[in-house]
Amino acid sequence: MSYTKKAGLPPGTLVHIGNKHTNETKISVIDYSAEHVQRIECKNVEDCFVYKDTESLSWINITSLNDISIIEKIGAAFNLHHLLLEDVLNTQHRPKLEDFDDYIFISLKMLGVTKDGKGIVSEQVSLVLGSTWILSFQEIEGDVFNPLRVRMENIKSAARNKHIDYLLYRILDTIVDNYFFVTENISDRFLKLEETALKASDGNTLNEIQRLKRQIIQVRKTISPLRDVVSTLQKDELEVISAETNRYIKDVYDHLIQLIDTLDTQRDLVGGIMELYLTGVSNKMNQVMQLLTIISTIFIPLTFIAGIYGMNFTYMPELQSRYGYFIVWGVMIAIFIVMIMFFKRKKWL
Amino acid sequence: MSYTKKAGLPPGTLVHIGNKHTNETKISVIDYSAEHVQRIECKNVEDCFVYKDTESLSWINITSLNDISIIEKIGAAFNLHHLLLEDVLNTQHRPKLEDFDDYIFISLKMLGVTKDGKGIVSEQVSLVLGSTWILSFQEIEGDVFNPLRVRMENIKSAARNKHIDYLLYRILDTIVDNYFFVTENISDRFLKLEETALKASDGNTLNEIQRLKRQIIQVRKTISPLRDVVSTLQKDELEVISAETNRYIKDVYDHLIQLIDTLDTQRDLVGGIMELYLTGVSNKMNQVMQLLTIISTIFIPLTFIAGIYGMNFTYMPELQSRYGYFIVWGVMIAIFIVMIMFFKRKKWL
Amino acid sequence: MSYTKKAGLPPGTLVHIGNKHTNETKISVIDYSAEHVQRIECKNVEDCFVYKDTESLSWINITSLNDISIIEKIGAAFNLHHLLLEDVLNTQHRPKLEDFDDYIFISLKMLGVTKDGKGIVSEQVSLVLGSTWILSFQEIEGDVFNPLRVRMENIKSAARNKHIDYLLYRILDTIVDNYFFVTENISDRFLKLEETALKASDGNTLNEIQRLKRQIIQVRKTISPLRDVVSTLQKDELEVISAETNRYIKDVYDHLIQLIDTLDTQRDLVGGIMELYLTGVSNKMNQVMQLLTIISTIFIPLTFIAGIYGMNFTYMPELQSRYGYFIVWGVMIAIFIVMIMFFKRKKWL
Amino acid sequence: MSYTKKAGLPPGTLVHIGNKHTNETKISVIDYSAEHVQRIECKNVEDCFVYKDTESLSWINITSLNDISIIEKIGAAFNLHHLLLEDVLNTQHRPKLEDFDDYIFISLKMLGVTKDGKGIVSEQVSLVLGSTWILSFQEIEGDVFNPLRVRMENIKSAARNKHIDYLLYRILDTIVDNYFFVTENISDRFLKLEETALKASDGNTLNEIQRLKRQIIQVRKTISPLRDVVSTLQKDELEVISAETNRYIKDVYDHLIQLIDTLDTQRDLVGGIMELYLTGVSNKMNQVMQLLTIISTIFIPLTFIAGIYGMNFTYMPELQSRYGYFIVWGVMIAIFIVMIMFFKRKKWL
Amino acid sequence: MSYTKKAGLPPGTLVHIGNKHTNETKISVIDYSAEHVQRIECKNVEDCFVYKDTESLSWINITSLNDISIIEKIGAAFNLHHLLLEDVLNTQHRPKLEDFDDYIFISLKMLGVTKDGKGIVSEQVSLVLGSTWILSFQEIEGDVFNPLRVRMENIKSAARNKHIDYLLYRILDTIVDNYFFVTENISDRFLKLEETALKASDGNTLNEIQRLKRQIIQVRKTISPLRDVVSTLQKDELEVISAETNRYIKDVYDHLIQLIDTLDTQRDLVGGIMELYLTGVSNKMNQVMQLLTIISTIFIPLTFIAGIYGMNFTYMPELQSRYGYFIVWGVMIAIFIVMIMFFKRKKWL
Repeated sequence: MSYTKKAGLPPGTLVHIGNKHTNETKISVIDYSAEHVQRIECKNVEDCFVYKDTESLSWINITSLNDISIIEKIGAAFNLHHLLLEDVLNTQHRPKLEDFDDYIFISLKMLGVTKDGKGIVSEQVSLVLGSTWILSFQEIEGDVFNPLRVRMENIKSAARNKHIDYLLYRILDTIVDNYFFVTENISDRFLKLEETALKASDGNTLNEIQRLKRQIIQVRKTISPLRDVVSTLQKDELEVISAETNRYIKDVYDHLIQLIDTLDTQRDLVGGIMELYLTGVSNKMNQVMQLLTIISTIFIPLTFIAGIYGMNFTYMPELQSRYGYFIVWGVMIAIFIVMIMFFKRKKWL
Repeated sequence: MSYTKKAGLPPGTLVHIGNKHTNETKISVIDYSAEHVQRIECKNVEDCFVYKDTESLSWINITSLNDISIIEKIGAAFNLHHLLLEDVLNTQHRPKLEDFDDYIFISLKMLGVTKDGKGIVSEQVSLVLGSTWILSFQEIEGDVFNPLRVRMENIKSAARNKHIDYLLYRILDTIVDNYFFVTENISDRFLKLEETALKASDGNTLNEIQRLKRQIIQVRKTISPLRDVVSTLQKDELEVISAETNRYIKDVYDHLIQLIDTLDTQRDLVGGIMELYLTGVSNKMNQVMQLLTIISTIFIPLTFIAGIYGMNFTYMPELQSRYGYFIVWGVMIAIFIVMIMFFKRKKWL
Repeated sequence: MSYTKKAGLPPGTLVHIGNKHTNETKISVIDYSAEHVQRIECKNVEDCFVYKDTESLSWINITSLNDISIIEKIGAAFNLHHLLLEDVLNTQHRPKLEDFDDYIFISLKMLGVTKDGKGIVSEQVSLVLGSTWILSFQEIEGDVFNPLRVRMENIKSAARNKHIDYLLYRILDTIVDNYFFVTENISDRFLKLEETALKASDGNTLNEIQRLKRQIIQVRKTISPLRDVVSTLQKDELEVISAETNRYIKDVYDHLIQLIDTLDTQRDLVGGIMELYLTGVSNKMNQVMQLLTIISTIFIPLTFIAGIYGMNFTYMPELQSRYGYFIVWGVMIAIFIVMIMFFKRKKWL
Repeated sequence: MSYTKKAGLPPGTLVHIGNKHTNETKISVIDYSAEHVQRIECKNVEDCFVYKDTESLSWINITSLNDISIIEKIGAAFNLHHLLLEDVLNTQHRPKLEDFDDYIFISLKMLGVTKDGKGIVSEQVSLVLGSTWILSFQEIEGDVFNPLRVRMENIKSAARNKHIDYLLYRILDTIVDNYFFVTENISDRFLKLEETALKASDGNTLNEIQRLKRQIIQVRKTISPLRDVVSTLQKDELEVISAETNRYIKDVYDHLIQLIDTLDTQRDLVGGIMELYLTGVSNKMNQVMQLLTIISTIFIPLTFIAGIYGMNFTYMPELQSRYGYFIVWGVMIAIFIVMIMFFKRKKWL
Repeated sequence: MSYTKKAGLPPGTLVHIGNKHTNETKISVIDYSAEHVQRIECKNVEDCFVYKDTESLSWINITSLNDISIIEKIGAAFNLHHLLLEDVLNTQHRPKLEDFDDYIFISLKMLGVTKDGKGIVSEQVSLVLGSTWILSFQEIEGDVFNPLRVRMENIKSAARNKHIDYLLYRILDTIVDNYFFVTENISDRFLKLEETALKASDGNTLNEIQRLKRQIIQVRKTISPLRDVVSTLQKDELEVISAETNRYIKDVYDHLIQLIDTLDTQRDLVGGIMELYLTGVSNKMNQVMQLLTIISTIFIPLTFIAGIYGMNFTYMPELQSRYGYFIVWGVMIAIFIVMIMFFKRKKWL
């Protein structure tokens, strides 16, 4: 359902905006404390409600936004504002952070590279950080969080011994680290294009340059508002973020700054590749035209001479000459050589 | 009447500035409270004055700005500043919010797509928010607010149970949601243009690109100042906006940010389409010229050879040769084949 | 006298900088209160000094800056700082506001369109606002203020019943409203150029585009600093501006924002016209060259065939053939038709 | 000695960085009060030290930075920070102001136009403002300050009766007024280039445009940081600047704003000249090519016709015709006239 | 190991990110006070731990980041936060300053020019400033700090008599001064390119321009964030920086501003060189094409005339004329001369 379909419905109507994925809703919980850790796959959405009020910390991950009734039930159980639920279901808006006193809501994008290495896919992740729990909503099931989950089962894992805000940091850190795959993919394609741009003259290269440019703009648009989100997390006096976790979040912030920096530089440089490509195309064209024109230029005076002696005047003394024909050949060859030498010296050939 | 016509008149003179529409003035009132709702079409302008002081909430909508005397009467009845009335009648100014202590004035634009899907129309909407009433002035009658009106007749409608500022939010939300139709229309035309730009070489495509660019600039110019308006609504300590409504207005603000973001990206990308178009035109031209030049280049040396043997020298041994003519043909065909192969290998053909 | 002539003179030396106009100095006073209004043309500069200390309000307008001694006398009588007098006489500086405690000084430009509708003229207006008087200095006599003067003679005129700061607002408003003539003139020429740009290929159009661009930049440069001036008037706690007048000045400010907005959009769009023009020129050139090249390309192979049968070989079987000549004609016509069809199908013709 | 030569030396080592001038060091003092004025040329650097502690005001001007020992002696006598002395000797840094409690240090550039009117020369001036003295360091002796010196000998000169900070203002004012010579020189060359750009097609014009562009960027770079310097002088609560002088410094500030404004406009406009030049070059080229191609296009079909009747077929009925030759001539002339008319009507000729 | 390899590892895992250098880890200490100075090369990493708690000041320099265990040991001994250690080992992030209460961490880049003078190399330097010690981490051994080390052995060296923050300043100053080598290298190559750009037309020049542009962007990206670092050092109330050292750090800050200024100007100007190059290429091409076309244009009418008299009409009166042939030659020479003169006068030749 596209955004415009929603225009006209009353606010508070929950509608999934964005591309629909066909997978089933899956709810998995990690309930942990310093002493224990437990992974639960919930069959019914109600199974996960108990983790809201346990003393142990819980990370409840909901995959797929297809079944709106599940989202509504979770919203009711966890007492979430309906504008928040709307934002969870609208996968077309910008990353943002909103503070709802009892919990904070963070919406951001996960980026990935398609299998052919030329496209960039984006998935929205919504995080709700409560006092002892984190709700995370994903559009599709992925394996990005797997290493994190595995590590949490290790009793020595830092996350096990810290507050729930540290888990938030770990989730953010995992997502932001994944962005580097995208910028490095862009860098790689950039270097390849730079090598071929001056030589290539096909529409493909042009399309690839335009696609790269568009992707840089769109990735930047995805990452750039996240800077404000993390900056708010870090600077604001949000109660849910402890001073200790703050330094870690600063680290995420630094990574974001570096990513944006890299994207800005890439955006500045992509114009240079376009310039190389256009210069390459024009140079090649010019060389061709110049060579062809030189060939014409050489033969036109020679053809003129041949034309002269093709005239049918009764009285043309040269024609009777015994060696006239050979002399003319000599003159023509001489002209030919002089012209070739002239063009060579001018470096036109 | 254009703006410059007004220059020279004393301030306070009410004059309709902008395109005139020929429709009649229509005044309709929705008077509501949690318990009741009532829709009234006023025959005389005076009929709507009573709703100013009722305890129930009222939304008074005036369509068409043609009859200035009606605007003046409303101004007198609702005690509106004459600069406000001037702004209602001047449909060429920027969106703005002004706080007149007893009421706040908001002026903004409604945007729509013309039927052929290629033009964008703009209509000014002026809103005055009092303590228990909203005045809205529209240039032409439209159906944008109809769903909102219908929903208000439902007793469970959120608007029915909230303050008048919530109705203001609903009106703003309806208008802003309509902007998405415009940006999606631009996106659609953008994608179509992108596909055809490289192939097309007609002036039409060029005009369409320029029109798109101009429309993006103008839509952005219409929406961008609205951000400040909504930001003022949200941040300022305006008495008329309650804390509860505030969060909803923040939602409208987020939509505006996203719209502006989208328009900025579209503006950045439209230059790329222009580049594609110009490269396409130039490539096509180059191919034509190259092919034509190659044809000339092949025949010019052959014509020279024919010219040679067209000369009338008395003594030209080849001419008497029995097979001279066929040998010359052979030489010419050989030259022809070598040149074709050369051009093929160079990828010029 | 150009600015550089002044470099080296001590500060405080009054020198007229800018284009000199040859008109005589004219001093006219409007002295008014709620009860009376009086227009006086002063023969001697001293005649206007009495209005400084009358209780009634006075607007003293000095036209032409040629006679520096008059400026000096007024400066002495009204106790004006000599830096202020220098600024009155230097018609090349930017609009600005300066607060001299007892009075405030405002310098701005009046803009107009030349009679041929293609040039923009600029005249500096300096305003000094005292407690009961306004001094205005104009370079040349114009009729911009006439409607304002006429209206003040009307006893119901708002200005008659308000403080002197309201008169300042009316003067500013009159000047700013006149700017709209300039931006609408630019818009008109813009639309005309847009229509002709793609078709025209003469230097005139190019010059006109460049002139428009230059004028937009210069008009913006003239209006833009005025925004700060009016913003200072409006926001600062200047004693001379009453709260009531403040709202009116905010209105002037809104007009300025709109003007600057319009100029910015025009500046953004003028690049598009240039693009259209250049594409038009290049398209036309390309069409010409393509047509000419096609003509050559068609005849070159035909000429080659004619050349073949112009050769003088003794043994050329076709030459003896009864229908050889007609067959050759047939072949040539066939080649001609095939090539024309080929070019037509390729849409090159 | 270039800047990089200094890298590696300990801080505090005094080294002259920048172009060396060969002139001798000259120290001249103006010692003045309301009652007296005295000009002294110091033979030894020690002669000027006495003026540090006199009650009268003193302006000590040191010309040439060649003799570093003199700079060191002055530094010791006036108790100047060695980082300040380094900055005096490094003529490659940006204008700046530094407050050393007992004195303030200002470093700025004096700009001039070379004799051929096409180059811009820059000289660094360093000013140290103490409680009763100003030290000024110049690279080369010039006559910019002469009018100022002469005027100070006049007992009525404003400077004689004011504090030392007023002298600082006069020096700054003199330097800033000189910048106008540079911007007017740029304007003059700009106008000349604009006239010739469209017609010229030689490399000279191109170089001149690039030079102008470079000079505008560099002059702006020189003047722009001075704005911050003067702004600091004006706004900050520097003790050494009295309230009275403050208004004068505001005047200098206004001049700087105007200069930067002018340079920004010039920078915006210089791109337009480049555009004119390139369009001019391309138009001229196109005209030439078009004319040449038209000539070819006219003769190629005619040559073809001649070629036809140069064929040697035994049976070609036209050849035997009595008027064949003249008919062919007629046909060729007709074709020629039709083509010329066609090209004329198409406006290609 | 590239950055993306790290994604997935838990935070706190120390991994060397960036190009690996093969050199061995070397730890050297300078322990000094006003009275003594001592240089120690540590064989074991543990040898340097004692200098942490001595009263004398110590500069501990670690070269090479290959052996992560050494970095870990130092981290443990000096009680460094593990995020700091990660930053030391990640040589791909931006310059930054972080305040860890007990010490401050500064990360920046050292820049150098490659031997062929065309490449720019970057090395990360990490500094940790404690109360009596500085730790510095370098990627490779260089000689940049040698002059500084030698000078510290001199008892009169300023550093010997000041606090440890002064040594930090000296290290920063040494690194920043080295940046000037890079900008001067860019300037030199810039001037060379500017001279050749208009004349050259080979791909080499194009590549060199693009490389220069890219290097300017990347050097700016390296130096620009350092401004914030030094600004924080200078403005913030960091306890470790004394007021006295503050003025020195301001000097470093001024140098950075100047460097960034220079790089900005260079970036603005590099576009001009590109323009020169492209104009040069296009001019050269145009000249060639024009000359070649002129040659064709001259011979085409002449060939036509020859063609005329090559026709085989039985009745062509000129052919029988005794002087026909010579007259035709005369006509052709006349046409030739007229055309040459025409082209000369038009300045096309």
